[in-house]
Order: sequence, then C-alpha cells, then structure tokens
Amino acid sequence: MTSTTNHQFKLAKRPVGMVQRSDFDYTESPVPVPGDGEVLVKILYISLDPAMRGWMNEGKSYIPPVGIGEVMRAGAVGRVIASNDPAVAVGEHVLGILGVQEYAVAKAKGLTKVDPKLVPLPVYLGTLGMPGMTAYFGLLEVGKPKAGDTVVVSGAAGAVGQVVGQIAKIKGCRVVGIAGGKDKCDYVRSIGFDAAIDYKHEDVKAALRQHCPKGVDVYFDNVGGEILDAVLTQLAMHARIVICGAISQYNETQITGPRNYVSLLVHRASMTGMVVFDYASRYGEAAREMAGWMASGQLKTREDIVEGLETFPETLLKLFKGENTGKLVLKVADA
Amino acid sequence: MTSTTNHQFKLAKRPVGMVQRSDFDYTESPVPVPGDGEVLVKILYISLDPAMRGWMNEGKSYIPPVGIGEVMRAGAVGRVIASNDPAVAVGEHVLGILGVQEYAVAKAKGLTKVDPKLVPLPVYLGTLGMPGMTAYFGLLEVGKPKAGDTVVVSGAAGAVGQVVGQIAKIKGCRVVGIAGGKDKCDYVRSIGFDAAIDYKHEDVKAALRQHCPKGVDVYFDNVGGEILDAVLTQLAMHARIVICGAISQYNETQITGPRNYVSLLVHRASMTGMVVFDYASRYGEAAREMAGWMASGQLKTREDIVEGLETFPETLLKLFKGENTGKLVLKVADA
Repeated sequence: MTSTTNHQFKLAKRPVGMVQRSDFDYTESPVPVPGDGEVLVKILYISLDPAMRGWMNEGKSYIPPVGIGEVMRAGAVGRVIASNDPAVAVGEHVLGILGVQEYAVAKAKGLTKVDPKLVPLPVYLGTLGMPGMTAYFGLLEVGKPKAGDTVVVSGAAGAVGQVVGQIAKIKGCRVVGIAGGKDKCDYVRSIGFDAAIDYKHEDVKAALRQHCPKGVDVYFDNVGGEILDAVLTQLAMHARIVICGAISQYNETQITGPRNYVSLLVHRASMTGMVVFDYASRYGEAAREMAGWMASGQLKTREDIVEGLETFPETLLKLFKGENTGKLVLKVADA
Repeated sequence: MTSTTNHQFKLAKRPVGMVQRSDFDYTESPVPVPGDGEVLVKILYISLDPAMRGWMNEGKSYIPPVGIGEVMRAGAVGRVIASNDPAVAVGEHVLGILGVQEYAVAKAKGLTKVDPKLVPLPVYLGTLGMPGMTAYFGLLEVGKPKAGDTVVVSGAAGAVGQVVGQIAKIKGCRVVGIAGGKDKCDYVRSIGFDAAIDYKHEDVKAALRQHCPKGVDVYFDNVGGEILDAVLTQLAMHARIVICGAISQYNETQITGPRNYVSLLVHRASMTGMVVFDYASRYGEAAREMAGWMASGQLKTREDIVEGLETFPETLLKLFKGENTGKLVLKVADA
C-alpha cells in the first residue's frame, strides 16, 4: 500500500550554533513520479551522520552545502516501488543519497543495490556504508597502523569509532577507545577494545598515560576539541593523527584549535585530513573484507535505531549530545 | 693574546612569557683547561635561534631543557686555541654546540671543522648550519614540493625562511613569503620570491588569495598563530604543511591552536612536524648541494650580525620582536 503523500524535511535556514527543529520545514507534497532512467524509492532507513551538520553551513567544503528550501541531504536505504530503468526491478533494495523524506526519485545509476538477506538493511548505512568505509580507509590508508602499535579512537562507541577499533584489533594493535559515559565504555570493551576512557568522568590525559604507556602511535579523531588536545600531549614518535571529524566543534560558533599542536614537531608527528569519497572506487573491496570479518565474528556492529521520520531534528541532536551508541539510524517504514 | 677570563651567560631561571635579561646570570670564571680528547675553542660567532626559547622551558621536548645554572646552550663557531686531540690542530675553525660564552672546552669528536676561506664563518651558523639544514630537509623531505606548486613560507626573511623560498624557486615553484614590514618584504623579493606579504600591514588572507590563486600546495610554517590560521583557509587539495616552528607562540603563556585545522579534512591536507636532527646523517649531502647553489648565485644568504657577548639577552629578543633580517648571529671576537 503506497501513500500518495511524501513528507520531507527541508532546510529552512542555516543554523547558528546547535541545530534545532526550526532550522527545518516539515512539509507534505505528492509522491513524485520517476522520469526516464529514474526509479521511485520508498525509504525505509535514513542515516544520521555528524557530517550533516557541516552540510547545513554556507561556504566551501568537500561538497556543496544543502540549499535553503532543498530536502535535507542524507544517505538512506529503501525499496524500489517504480522503475523506469530495466537495470533495477521493483522490489529491489537500494542505497543512495536519497534525502530526509519518505519517497525519493533518483537516477538508477546513482544507486547501489543491497541485499537484506546478507545483513540487516541498517548495516548498509553503518559498517558496510559510509561510516564503515570511513573507518576502514581512514585507519588503514591514513593512520597506517602496524602490529603492536597503540591506536586511540575517540567517538569510540559511534558508527565510525566502533569499526576503527575492531579493525585495529584485527591488525594486531593495542586499542584504546574514548567515549562518553559508562555504558558506551562497557560497549567498546565488549567488542574487544583493550581499554576505554570515559571522558565525562575521567581525566583523559591521565587515563591515556595509564593505558598508553608507550605513547599513542595512531589517533583516529572524530571529535576535536579538548580530547584532541589531550591526545596531542601523549604522542609516540612519528605518530599519525587521522582527522576524520570534529563533532565537538560542529555546533560551536567559535572553533577551538588544538593548542598542543606543537607536539607534532616534538614527535615528528602528522595530522592528516581524510574524506571517504576519495576512496569510492575501492568501496567494494572494503565491503567484501569487512563482510568477511563480520561473518567470522571479528567485526561486530551495533545500530541505534529511532522510529519515525517526524522525529528527525531531535534524533539528529542525539549525535551532538553524544546520546547514540552505535550507528544512528532513523527508521521511516517497515518495508 | 688570550684572556684568562671566560664570560658566560647561565640560565638563572625559567622565563615566564617573554624572555628577559634577568632570566640569565652573566658570570666570569677562569678559562677552562681541556682534558684528554678535548680542545679549547675561542668562540667567534654564536648562533641565536628561536628554538633557544624552547630549551629554556622545563619539560619534555625533542632535547632536554637547559638546566638552571648551566651555560645557555647555543651553536657557535670558533678557533681552536689548545688541543688534546691529534685530529684537531690549534688554529683550525670548528662548529659545535659550544654555548653562550667566550671560551668552550669540548670533545673534539663532537665538533665539525669549517673553512672560513670557502664562506664567511657566520654562514656556517646560517645557510650551511642548522637553519639551512632545517630549510633543506623540511621543505624537500616533508613539504615535497613539485615544480609548479605554490609554496608559502612564513618568517620568510629569517634564517630558515630565506633558504626555504630560494630552494623552492630552484625546484620550479611559485614562492610567496610572509614577513613583517616593508624592508623584509623588499629583501625576500630581492632574492627571487615571486611575492611577499607584509603581515603587519596587510590582510594576510586576502593577500594569499591574491598571490596564490590556485591555493597553497606547501606551507612552511615558522610562526604559528594567526598566520597559520590564515594559510589554513587557503589550502589547495592535498596540501602539505610543514610545522618547523611557532615563534609567535614561544613567549605566550597560553598557546593559540589553529582554529581552522578542520581545513585539513576538507582539503585532505597534512600538517607534519619536523626536527632537523633526524637528518644529521645527511647534513653533508645538503651542505654540498647548497654550497653549489651559493657558488652559482642561485642561493643568496644574509646574516644580521650584532657585536658583543654582553648584549646576548637583548639580541636574542630581536628574534621574538621580529627585528632581524637574515640569520641572527652574535659576534664575540674577531679571530
């Protein structure tokens, strides 16, 4: 049974500071009709990612900002309910940048088919999606961990962090996660991290000294701010810092830079930014390897699923309040 | 004619904020007597370097701090006036870490012989000394400029910066220097830089936009602070930032981190620290190549020579006030 109405969240204005519901318009319009080479997708799960906050800002970044009045950009998986491209059949499941809405029309070419019998659909938004790819390529290609290295990851219980830590374990590293609160720390220990630091209740610098007695060889940074500064004081020689994100700063009007960056000099260390899209041609390779690790039980995955498109603004805020454990996904429909 | 008295500057206390004369004791003691394998050097020129400020601080760095009561550490060139090592003859000129004093006893093995007939002695403290080596290896090994790249260097009229810019020109790059004041900017243009930005009188960000229309591929940072932040806004994709120093911050009690470091992510750029000592085994190779460039006129060198050991604290301050053009050297004796 298909509705004739499409609910959408459109960007109403550019947020100042913390994002809020009034930055969006929640609108109704008729379900669109696909043109030549296009398909109509009923969206089932929408990926909520820290990067979305950046897409809401004006100005130059790694992709153009979402325009005012446009449907908010988001990755999503859904089921094809009409197709004008013979390559995609009605009933198939697809992944793509489909937006925060119930129905999306998209070029069939821009979509990736996914199989819900292999892994549950939300996993395609998490460990086998952008966050997993970010973890895989950021850690392996930029962090370049060697067996025996000490790898620290912040946002350790998040969509990217949980994968970073488990891949580092697979590669023979000592892994320390930084996360907010006892539950998240328990979670990252339960998936094999050697230690977890609760930044809300511990002195991060002292805890790093304790858990990383030989210093930090690789730091995968999802958060920026004070935690980045604390890790900078504990680097090993030739340390590699992967700048993947800076969620602590995304809603700040005045960004705090890493005061201790001169530690890079002292330790001949590097701090390198990465954007997952650069590795798009190799997603297949990474997905195959990670699916293998999942099948063998070496890579566990967790999603935090919230129901209801209409909760989108508040659910997105869970990311910035640090309330999600695992990949945050918005469930829009059952099938 | 040799004095029997040795004047020395010893570290009296750890400076707080800007270094001052009262942080040192100016003392007299008898000229020391060399032991077995040692030589006595009459110091002629002392190298004054921004790094000296860091050596005065307590705490872990790339070399131990100068102890309270110890002669202030400094590179210097001088003439051997007594020798207990057959490998070094009286009358030869040597370079080493000899300290801020008139006479030094040192193991002959730790010294490098230099020839004042090839280049004037102060050049061995500048372009053919640590600053030149820092420029050479920092630019070529960490910055990795390619012909056609835009290379920006701060502290462009200083001992390191002047060499960085000229080597980048030799390698076929477009070179933009950042320096304080018209005289320094005129100087860097006179040695072949394509453009110079006077940070004291220009909007650095706007000037970078003008002079680096394709963005900054390599930034060699000697200064940190606001200039680093301005350059971060103008990076080209895959830019390399060499963190060589942060002179704007050395006398600050509260360091300002680079607020715009998330630009590393957007531009897939890196920021890497370097310490010249790591390249010690290759100094000879670099010195030979740079001496060749000097002989052919491609690499010009300038020193800012101040006379009188007793002026040491105030002369050192010239560095932090940005008053030197070219390598700052303290002249202690004629011969």
